[in-house]
Amino acid sequence: MKFSCAQTEFNAQFSLVSRAVPSRPSKPVLGNVLVTADADAQSVTLVGFDETLGIQTTFAAQVDESGALTLPAKLLGDIVSRLPNEDIDISEDSDEPVVTLACSAGRYQVRGLSAEDYPNLPELEVTDVIKVSADALIEGLRGALFATSSDETKQVLTGVHLTASDASLEFAATDGHRLAVVNTIDETGAFTPDLDMTVTIPGKALRELERILQTYPSSEPVAFQLDDTQVVFDLGRQRITTRLLEGQYPNYNQLIPKQFERQLTLDRKQFVSSLERIAVIADQRNNIVKLSINNTQQSLALSVEAQEVGSGLENLPAQVTGDDLDIAFNVRYLLEGLKALPTAEIQIQCNTATSPSVLTPLGGTKITYLVMPVQIRS
Amino acid sequence: MKFSCAQTEFNAQFSLVSRAVPSRPSKPVLGNVLVTADADAQSVTLVGFDETLGIQTTFAAQVDESGALTLPAKLLGDIVSRLPNEDIDISEDSDEPVVTLACSAGRYQVRGLSAEDYPNLPELEVTDVIKVSADALIEGLRGALFATSSDETKQVLTGVHLTASDASLEFAATDGHRLAVVNTIDETGAFTPDLDMTVTIPGKALRELERILQTYPSSEPVAFQLDDTQVVFDLGRQRITTRLLEGQYPNYNQLIPKQFERQLTLDRKQFVSSLERIAVIADQRNNIVKLSINNTQQSLALSVEAQEVGSGLENLPAQVTGDDLDIAFNVRYLLEGLKALPTAEIQIQCNTATSPSVLTPLGGTKITYLVMPVQIRS
Repeated sequence: MKFSCAQTEFNAQFSLVSRAVPSRPSKPVLGNVLVTADADAQSVTLVGFDETLGIQTTFAAQVDESGALTLPAKLLGDIVSRLPNEDIDISEDSDEPVVTLACSAGRYQVRGLSAEDYPNLPELEVTDVIKVSADALIEGLRGALFATSSDETKQVLTGVHLTASDASLEFAATDGHRLAVVNTIDETGAFTPDLDMTVTIPGKALRELERILQTYPSSEPVAFQLDDTQVVFDLGRQRITTRLLEGQYPNYNQLIPKQFERQLTLDRKQFVSSLERIAVIADQRNNIVKLSINNTQQSLALSVEAQEVGSGLENLPAQVTGDDLDIAFNVRYLLEGLKALPTAEIQIQCNTATSPSVLTPLGGTKITYLVMPVQIRS
Repeated sequence: MKFSCAQTEFNAQFSLVSRAVPSRPSKPVLGNVLVTADADAQSVTLVGFDETLGIQTTFAAQVDESGALTLPAKLLGDIVSRLPNEDIDISEDSDEPVVTLACSAGRYQVRGLSAEDYPNLPELEVTDVIKVSADALIEGLRGALFATSSDETKQVLTGVHLTASDASLEFAATDGHRLAVVNTIDETGAFTPDLDMTVTIPGKALRELERILQTYPSSEPVAFQLDDTQVVFDLGRQRITTRLLEGQYPNYNQLIPKQFERQLTLDRKQFVSSLERIAVIADQRNNIVKLSINNTQQSLALSVEAQEVGSGLENLPAQVTGDDLDIAFNVRYLLEGLKALPTAEIQIQCNTATSPSVLTPLGGTKITYLVMPVQIRS
């Protein structure tokens, strides 16, 4: 193996795939990145894989000799990121699994492991293909990903549940305490489900997808290839592959109330700032903030009490319909949901102090964020 | 107590003194900030104190009622930093140690503790006063502070040793492996030692001093007030007080060789970049980098070997006088010293592979950075 390429390119691509390399690999070779140089295609392909999530990227390089080797992700990444911004030559020793990196600054030799020991990324058998515009995908991920559970024992709840049918794609995530549902409609016409689809995709893979999409042309379609156990996101030069989460996803639609007795419209940023101050006191105790809906004053009061520590009270103007109500929430759940809503104004809809409330953006993407209230003694 | 002031001012001053508040106070009141409002002076004074380091600041405020109370540093700081940028009213309850913060956003009540339980900052008895320009002080701290020991059991080595005599002030710091000595000469004439002085000041207090000096008028003098156990830095609105470190400071001047057989001049930034790359491999093993001085080629080669991992080699142009030599160092000690030197070019002076080397800036402040080499098998 022998190739040369720009330091910036190699560095960017190497750090991209390194994100799938586990920090504590189950076997040494998985702590490495697979580097494959192809003299015919004049390209280099890199792969990082933790046995669930795989990231692959291909970029143009001047390849003099084809070959493949795995190289330590952290060590090589740390060296390459510090090299000057110029071309670097990478060549494999003839008798040992060692590469030499050479540039004007100096020469580094790094020991790798044979490419033969590196597992293949899963191949999909009979695949279904769905295309979605990057824009719709970003919208869906931004509105749902934050609500997944970070508790690995919670299985399907660590993922986002995707339902495709006709021209719509629904993203749902819940950790058991709150639920986010995003309905995207692909306006670019890129969305072409060959068939209905219902899958739960690990949050970890989707966070990597969201990261890569930030530099992806927003109107370009992204292809999902699916079989019963795997999904591959095809982004042209990059591919993300992940195992699907198995198990029955909660029937979340039945949790969302169809009708509401009360409705408030208020400024989202103002609401977030007030909650962030209230949270300082709420964090001292049980994280609970009380919302007092006042129809006469057309306002929403936020209050918090932490005995022996302090208390806080804020008042926000709001357009209120329905009767007055005191209702309490975990302040973190409110804040996380409000930060994911993309509009200047938002709506809160609720019935009683013990039934689920729903937060929605006013205009824009269709997002439903449901939070269960916390019971308070009056 | 009743006063009002701008949120930005209160926030900046409160967070400044909070840096002296211990995260695990030995008694509850030390987790608080002492707030004293003075209606006659129309000013508010804040104090944070961990029983060794004290920071005090005074700022103008509209004070309607004098009074004093201690308030929880973290909690109050977190609320105030999140309030909108406008005036806030702070008033003490008549019957309880509770303050109310009020602004357009809302009202917060925070429970404090009586000011009577708060310890007084140490008063200096017979004091000696030394004045130094902020510039000279910054130079000295920047060149020496990094070389103190972070190991609290090392006593005097956790501080910077200051020696004042005539018009010069010498800063020295060593952790036993390397030594930094900075000689500043005060060109503003502000430097007025009433007498010779030799003290060791804790690194922690000096780091806070360095931080405050960043926004201090650089030509203004800073007054040191000293007695046998304490030093107070008087910066006008701010005062930093700290206990001095007791014990005999090493006689470091005798460690610095008077003559050198070899001398190199080289570009500092290039040297730092090369060492940072070499450090990636050196970190895998024993942190040792080998320097090979080559008179014929007028160069310095840096090399590192980590068996089973990799190796690295860099070559830097250098102006060399003296014979060739291989000499090895802990790469971290070299890097930390080089980063503290303020000039574009630096000099390395050495005798043998087992005697101390000295790094100095070429021009500018007089800094001597001494490092012990590490023995290597050839």
